Formats: sequence, structure tokens, C-alpha cells
Amino acid sequence: MKKFFYSFEQISIVSHLVKWTLLVIPISLTVGSLVALFLWLLEKVTQIRWQHEWLLFLLPLAGIPIYLLYKYLGKNSDAGNNLIIEEIHQPGGGVPARMAPLVLFTTVVTHLFGGSAGREGTAVQMGGSIANLFGRWFKLNEQDLRILLMTGVAAGFGAVFGTPVTGAVFALEVLAIGEMRYGALIPCLIAAVFADITTAAWGIHHTHYQILFSGSANDLLSFLHVDVLLIVKVIIAGLCFGLASYMFAGLMHTIKNYANRFIPRSGMKWLIPVIGGLLIIALCYLTGTTDYTGLGVHGKNAGSVSIVSAFHSGGASTWSWLLKMLFTAITLGMGFKGGEVTPLFFIGATLGNTLAVLFGAPVDLFAGLGFIAVFAGATNTPVACTLMGVELFGGGNILYYAIACFTAYYFSGHSGIYPAQRVMVAKI
Amino acid sequence: MKKFFYSFEQISIVSHLVKWTLLVIPISLTVGSLVALFLWLLEKVTQIRWQHEWLLFLLPLAGIPIYLLYKYLGKNSDAGNNLIIEEIHQPGGGVPARMAPLVLFTTVVTHLFGGSAGREGTAVQMGGSIANLFGRWFKLNEQDLRILLMTGVAAGFGAVFGTPVTGAVFALEVLAIGEMRYGALIPCLIAAVFADITTAAWGIHHTHYQILFSGSANDLLSFLHVDVLLIVKVIIAGLCFGLASYMFAGLMHTIKNYANRFIPRSGMKWLIPVIGGLLIIALCYLTGTTDYTGLGVHGKNAGSVSIVSAFHSGGASTWSWLLKMLFTAITLGMGFKGGEVTPLFFIGATLGNTLAVLFGAPVDLFAGLGFIAVFAGATNTPVACTLMGVELFGGGNILYYAIACFTAYYFSGHSGIYPAQRVMVAKI
Repeated sequence: MKKFFYSFEQISIVSHLVKWTLLVIPISLTVGSLVALFLWLLEKVTQIRWQHEWLLFLLPLAGIPIYLLYKYLGKNSDAGNNLIIEEIHQPGGGVPARMAPLVLFTTVVTHLFGGSAGREGTAVQMGGSIANLFGRWFKLNEQDLRILLMTGVAAGFGAVFGTPVTGAVFALEVLAIGEMRYGALIPCLIAAVFADITTAAWGIHHTHYQILFSGSANDLLSFLHVDVLLIVKVIIAGLCFGLASYMFAGLMHTIKNYANRFIPRSGMKWLIPVIGGLLIIALCYLTGTTDYTGLGVHGKNAGSVSIVSAFHSGGASTWSWLLKMLFTAITLGMGFKGGEVTPLFFIGATLGNTLAVLFGAPVDLFAGLGFIAVFAGATNTPVACTLMGVELFGGGNILYYAIACFTAYYFSGHSGIYPAQRVMVAKI
Repeated sequence: MKKFFYSFEQISIVSHLVKWTLLVIPISLTVGSLVALFLWLLEKVTQIRWQHEWLLFLLPLAGIPIYLLYKYLGKNSDAGNNLIIEEIHQPGGGVPARMAPLVLFTTVVTHLFGGSAGREGTAVQMGGSIANLFGRWFKLNEQDLRILLMTGVAAGFGAVFGTPVTGAVFALEVLAIGEMRYGALIPCLIAAVFADITTAAWGIHHTHYQILFSGSANDLLSFLHVDVLLIVKVIIAGLCFGLASYMFAGLMHTIKNYANRFIPRSGMKWLIPVIGGLLIIALCYLTGTTDYTGLGVHGKNAGSVSIVSAFHSGGASTWSWLLKMLFTAITLGMGFKGGEVTPLFFIGATLGNTLAVLFGAPVDLFAGLGFIAVFAGATNTPVACTLMGVELFGGGNILYYAIACFTAYYFSGHSGIYPAQRVMVAKI
């Protein structure tokens, strides 16, 4: 019995907890505030772009300063999220402090002129960059610096989507495929919670999505407490979501490779974003809509396709998901900046909408499943995305979230959008 | 672009999925049915015991056949959950088929005569034993047999609590401390879902717990969208829950060791459960109640302390958690059978009730947090327990679930109730 009362392990855990809380608070406050600024700017530039449609025509030109900024000032910032993942695996040159302002500015420019991009990449890169900066000031050792970088990722992700639990788990899960290690569990949760609180304290509100569907047993099989037919539909949808993730990652890599092969001379590389911008403009004319430019969370008009509209019947057309995929792969594959995740949400939600119509399944549920599952497949983070479903849409349908995310994870292959992820356990 | 359309990786994933669905279905049907039988028997014997209070006096005698059954017929079944965890890590002699009927019978006997025990150990052992049996029939190789054993654990756990997502994640997470590997993610989820459906199809209903609390911002800090003071209370409570897990595991090991040291002669070991039974009777007289015997989900009378009552103000007394801990450590440490998890729920929920009174916090929320967090600490499965919170109580308070479970996980030390768990990543 002595063991209980004289153990000092718990005391060292308390000091660990206090140490990390103190280390993490300045990072979370900074990252949370930067994310608040970023989200506020994003809202502003989206409004401006809606009011001035001609801004789209400047997209090709806007690509040039982005390219030049990264070329002459970026150091290794261009590697983005992959640099942060690699630094966590194997601390090397560090994440440059300039990454935070660079990615913030270039993402806002991308959105102002109608590129199709997201937010999480920007938030995560600001988080990693700020964490690295504080880590240098605190003179941490290598092991602690790795944890601090993970807290930066958790803070950025948790704050930008208002989902702290997801942010913490994402930071652990994104590093490797097939394995999650818990070493930085508590520091990451502290960071994500504080950053989320900070962003919210600046008055930033996150979009509210609603899934009204609540499972009711099938009439034919009423002795079962779940709808088996719906589960089968969710599995097939999960498969489609996984293939969409696979396609997105492949399409982006392919576009990037082709662009670089097409314009091999390093002095001419600035042409890549120019051509990318022209392609986006051409696509807008071909499709007759600008719904697929920008962030896409809300639509410009009542009839626009957006993530929010995809939760309602008729809120997306059959091929909306493919168009958004094309717009985003061109935008991000050809040198513009921003995250991949909000476009993945868009692709998933609209694909879910299409599949719901096809399968005769509830539209709001399937939009929500696509939202989280395409993201789960592309980033190989099925547990974080299941938790995200709960944080964004409520817990009632968690079984369907898990089935969709786990299935999509299996079917997305081993590549994903972060090549820096290490494959620890093969999927099959 | 060729890569997309001619890749065969996805085809092999489909065949993997079909193979495991076919392998897992017979296991899930059998385990789900056995769990249904088990839960039905448990309900019956609890009713019988409540009607015939004198049964408690036979508890010491009931211990003798349990001891003899395991000694002469049990082979290595006595190792229980630890045997299954070890077989998954390193397949050896296999999990004996007789484990399923043995643990079912002896758990029911333990409950009939008023031992304080749970259900999950029994369900998990039935799952592992049945999975091993099918694995032998299917002539699987070692790697597949390991996955099949994990599906057995997932099926048993998912079915006994009606929480399939938790069951699947638990089966992956329980194997090691500090790391979760995703190799068997989909087979485990399929198994847990099918087993849960099977149990429900037999007409078994699970207890419904309710947390009415929904977060409201503190008045003083109304510019924040979360109640920071409540978060601090949840962290301190999580610390207490983790220490309770630590204490429970230590107390059980200590009682087991002392009993074996006190009765060293192998021919006299049957005396251990006899003395254990006498101690339980003595404790009932000392405390003047039988509330701490049996499963403890529901109370016998309106005023009884139970898991359900702990969700209401006044539903537990200050030291209920300590008493349940003592009753259970004696029951399980001295040779009776059953799981540890339902008693851990009881200990957690009543400790949560006590702490809520102490901190001026919402009772239902804190009872729910204790319910999942003491379990998270004792089994080192913080993610599974966070998901369990969502599956049992709804998703609204997931942030508090995660904080409580992760904190408890940190403070429960590296021992836990399953010594077969391997420490992969140290907690600090």
C-alpha cells in the first residue's frame, strides 16, 4: 500500500503539465490571434471579391508576386505543411519565422482574386512557424521542440475550424499513416483549447452546419436498432469519398509535375501561376459560374453551390465535386497558396449530396459524411475526422461518421496530400 | 493521369474488405448472441439476488467451485483479458475455447451471490475465445489470427455496452500504452457493428444515461465561448479520476499478492475466495448496505447508490467511490470473476458526483466524466473513452470528455489493470 502514498511519478506529471501549459500559452495566444486576423481578412476579401467580380481577371497577375515572394524571401517555406511534418519527424533547419506572414499574405491574395483554396494549411503553417520561433527563444532541446511544433499544428487547426479536440488529435495523427503516438497528447490539447478560446475571444464565429437526420430503424427490419441498409449505403459512400481523396491528391501532384515539365526553365517559372490563373478564368467561363472559386463555405447568392448549400436537397449539382476538385488542384498545384482542407470539405459535401440523391439517402447526413471523410482520406486522419464530425455536427450519428471516415481512409491509398507523412503501418 | 485509372491497389482493398467481412460475420453473430445471453442472465440473477438477500451469505461458498473450475478445467484461462492481449502481441498457445463458457458461468455465479464485478472482461474474453476458435477452423496464418482476436475483443466490447465505435477503437488502443496502430481498423469496426446489431436484435437494451448540462459561458468572461473556470475544474477532476484508476489497479494487485502470500500452500488456495466472500459480507454489515455488491448499474431501491443515481444530485455519498473500489478489489482480487469496467464506471460516476458537489459543478456532467475517465486511466485508452462519452451521453460536451480522459490517462501511471499492455511511448 505504501506504493500509493509515496509515489512521486504523479508529481513529475504535474510539473510536466505545468511546464507545457506555460510553454504553450504564449503560442496559443499568438496563433489564436493570428488565426482570428486571418479569418477576419478572409471574410473581408471574400466580400470584396463578390462586390467586384472583375478581380478574377487579375488572378493570373496576382500569381506573380506570390511566386516571387516565395522564391526570393521564402527560404524553404514553399514546402508548407510538409516542412512542418518533416521537422517534427526529424528536426533540421527549423521552420522559418517568415513562413507565418508569407502564408497569411499570399493566402489572402489568392482568395481576393478568386483562387480556389482553403484555410487549414495557412493556419497550420502559422502555428508551426510561431511555435518554432518561441521554441528558439525558450532554447528548448530537440525533443521538446518537436512537441512544441506539434502544439503549433494543434493550435492552428483547432482555432481555424473551432474544433479543439480534432485539432489536438489531428496534430498527432497526421504525422504518420497507420499509427498514432500519444507523446504530446496533453500539450496538443492545451494548445488547441487555448488557441480556440483566443480566436473566439476576438469575436470570430465559425460556420454552423446542421444535420437534422437522426437514425431511425428501417421498417422491414424493425427488430434491429440501426438501419442496416443505411450502413451499407454509408460504406459505399465511404468508398467513393476515399477514391475522391485519392483522385484529388493524384490530380494535384500530376498538375504540379506537368506544369514544371511544361515550363522547365527556372527563369520562367513565374508563368506557372499566370497560366493557372488563366485556366481558372477559362473554367469560370466554361462552367458559367464563379461558385467554385474562393473558399466556398457560403455562396454569393441564394442559388450558389457552397458547403452550406450542399447540406440541403438541390444544393449541389451532380458534378459540383469534380469541378471544385479541378479548380482547387489547378489553384494549389500551380503556385497559389492556402489550405487544401476547406476545398476537400466542399468536394466531400457536394459529392455526399450527389450520392444521397443517387442512393435515396438523407442529404444532410451524406453531405456531412463527405465533408469529414474526403478530408480523412486525403490526410489519413480517420480518428481526428470522426471527432470533427462530432464537434461540427453533433454526436448522434457518430457510428456513420466512423464508418465513412475509416472506409475512406482505406480507399485513399498510401499517398495523400502530405507526402511527408511516413507509412508506419500499411493499410492492408 | 494513368495512375488513377489503372491502379489496382483499390481492388485489393475491396477484396480485403470482403474477406474480413466474411470472416468476421460468424464471429460477430456468435459473440453478439453470447453477449445477449450474458446480459439477459445478468439481469435475471440481479433480480433474483434482490429478491433473496440471503444469497449473499453463500458468496464465500460460491467462490470454491469458481476456484476449482479454473484450477482443473481452465488451462490458462485464468489470465483473462491479459491472455488475449498477450496472444495478440505474440501468438502462442492460443486462447482456449473453454474460456467463453467458463467466464460466462463464473461471472453469472459471482453476480448471483453478490460479488462486485463488471461485464466487459467477460464479454471481451468470450469474444477472444470465440474468435480464436473460428480462427483455428479457418486455418488462418499468425498475422490474420492476431487481427481476428482483435475483432473478437471489438465485438465483445461493442456489444456489451452498445458502443460499436468505442469497441473498435478500444480493441486497437488497449494493446499498448502511448500508441495506437490502425492495422485492424476496418475489421474491428465491422465486428463491433455486427455484434452490437446482433445483441440488439435479441431484444437487449442498454441503459440510457443522460447529461442535460450544455455548456454556457461564464458571466464574468462572457466574451469567451467556453467556460474557462469549468475547464479548470474538469482538469482537476481528471487528475482525481486518474489517481482513482491508479489506486484501483494498485489496490487490486496488492490484495491479490497479499492473499497469495497469506495462503501460500497450493492445496489451500480455495480458501482465498472464501475469505474474500466473508470480507464482502463483513463490509456489507459495516457499511449497512448492499449497494456496492453486484453490477451497480441500477439500484435496488429508489434511495440506493448506483451508476444511474450518481448522475443526479444526492445520488451518491462522499465516499461511495472508495467503498465500491474496496468491494471490487476484494471481489476480483480474491478469485471471483467478471469485468473491471462497470465497477470503474461506478467508481468514476460516484467520484464525479462527489467532486461536483465539492467544486460547485454540474453533477450530471461530472458523473459522466468520471464514468469514462476512470476507465480511460485504468485501461490507458483515452481516445476510446472520449468516443464512449459521445456514444453514451451525446456529443455536446466532447471537449470536457477529452480533457477529463486525457488528463486521467496521464495521471494513472504506467501500470493499469492490464499488465499485458506494452508501454510503447512513455506518458511523460
